[in-house]
Amino acid sequence: MLELPAVAVVGGTGHLGAAIARRLALAGYPIIIGSRDPERAREAAARLSGILPTAIRGASNPQAAREGAIVIVAVPFTFQAQILADIRSSVGGKIIVDTTVPLMPPKVMRVQLPPEGSAAQIAQKILGDKVTVVSAFHNVPAHKLATDQEIDCDVLVFGDDKESCARVIDLVKACRLRGLHGGSLANSAAAEAFTSILISINKQYSVDGAGIRITGELK
Amino acid sequence: MLELPAVAVVGGTGHLGAAIARRLALAGYPIIIGSRDPERAREAAARLSGILPTAIRGASNPQAAREGAIVIVAVPFTFQAQILADIRSSVGGKIIVDTTVPLMPPKVMRVQLPPEGSAAQIAQKILGDKVTVVSAFHNVPAHKLATDQEIDCDVLVFGDDKESCARVIDLVKACRLRGLHGGSLANSAAAEAFTSILISINKQYSVDGAGIRITGELK
Repeated sequence: MLELPAVAVVGGTGHLGAAIARRLALAGYPIIIGSRDPERAREAAARLSGILPTAIRGASNPQAAREGAIVIVAVPFTFQAQILADIRSSVGGKIIVDTTVPLMPPKVMRVQLPPEGSAAQIAQKILGDKVTVVSAFHNVPAHKLATDQEIDCDVLVFGDDKESCARVIDLVKACRLRGLHGGSLANSAAAEAFTSILISINKQYSVDGAGIRITGELK
Repeated sequence: MLELPAVAVVGGTGHLGAAIARRLALAGYPIIIGSRDPERAREAAARLSGILPTAIRGASNPQAAREGAIVIVAVPFTFQAQILADIRSSVGGKIIVDTTVPLMPPKVMRVQLPPEGSAAQIAQKILGDKVTVVSAFHNVPAHKLATDQEIDCDVLVFGDDKESCARVIDLVKACRLRGLHGGSLANSAAAEAFTSILISINKQYSVDGAGIRITGELK
């Protein structure tokens, strides 16, 4: 059996990060949960270790980023720049999966894209060109991802390097979701903006976690 | 039977405009097809009149805009500003349904939102605050809309005035599509940007017109 790469989840104690960590661990990936508070990360890892077969440990965000072969970043937009700067020296040559959506509370139902175009482009700017930024997981409801249920939602994956995107699409698949390459990193703006649409639809139409599906016969 | 309002389709000889005009005419709406070339508009109207029961006529864009109770604008981004300026004096107090997607050839697979945020916000800026701009029809494949087939795609409708959005959602329904209010006009950026994602997916996955569906139990 092919050995699966260790995946670090920076911000892995948050709703989205914890849910991704859990699904990947269930699929057999070794996981390092990162948090600004290493103690919280270790507690979260211990909770998951009790129910899961794979190696899960907790660490500070930079330590987790150092140990992961692939590093998923799942932090609120407000902290994105700071946390990326904190892990920057630990991620050279790696694939960073940025999941940041530029929501600016209190107006989370309003699209407010940053001047850089997207949170993904901010990440690439901060991390520099020795790091391959891929963005994904913008539109999937975290509270559904935290369960074992099938989720009626596609995950769009954006990035300028096709092979890296293919590896991230494998991670998405391991989370039991369909991942589709949505084009270049700049295109991440569309999925990031779409999250505000989904929040707005959740409120207007009383939906418990709306999602998106790409329709058509994909080959 | 309630009389349906006359709908003008500015740019109604183009792919998207002609398809919308045809579906609305089939649903019983009186239609005025507008074009920069009134002769082409009259020819298009005559072709449709041959197969449809309702009143369809052709006119110049400004004349069509004057005659419509609701005015749909379906023109390429390159001509949007000019054509909106041309019809501006004819649309005071009306609902304008802007369908513009800010595609900038040749890079149509790349999200390139304008500095104003979205084409919809450009429209509002040009038309002024006596006009209610609603945006819609960004993601539905025109070549499918041009047929009688069921289309597996939702239409997101954006606007700051809920009642106007509800009227546009009625038009979407008349086109035999599900229309959903996606929030404020600024949110149009998400659907506009999404069109580049769909074009990219069409190419990468050999799809004949990918679309989007909002998932979840909408009430």
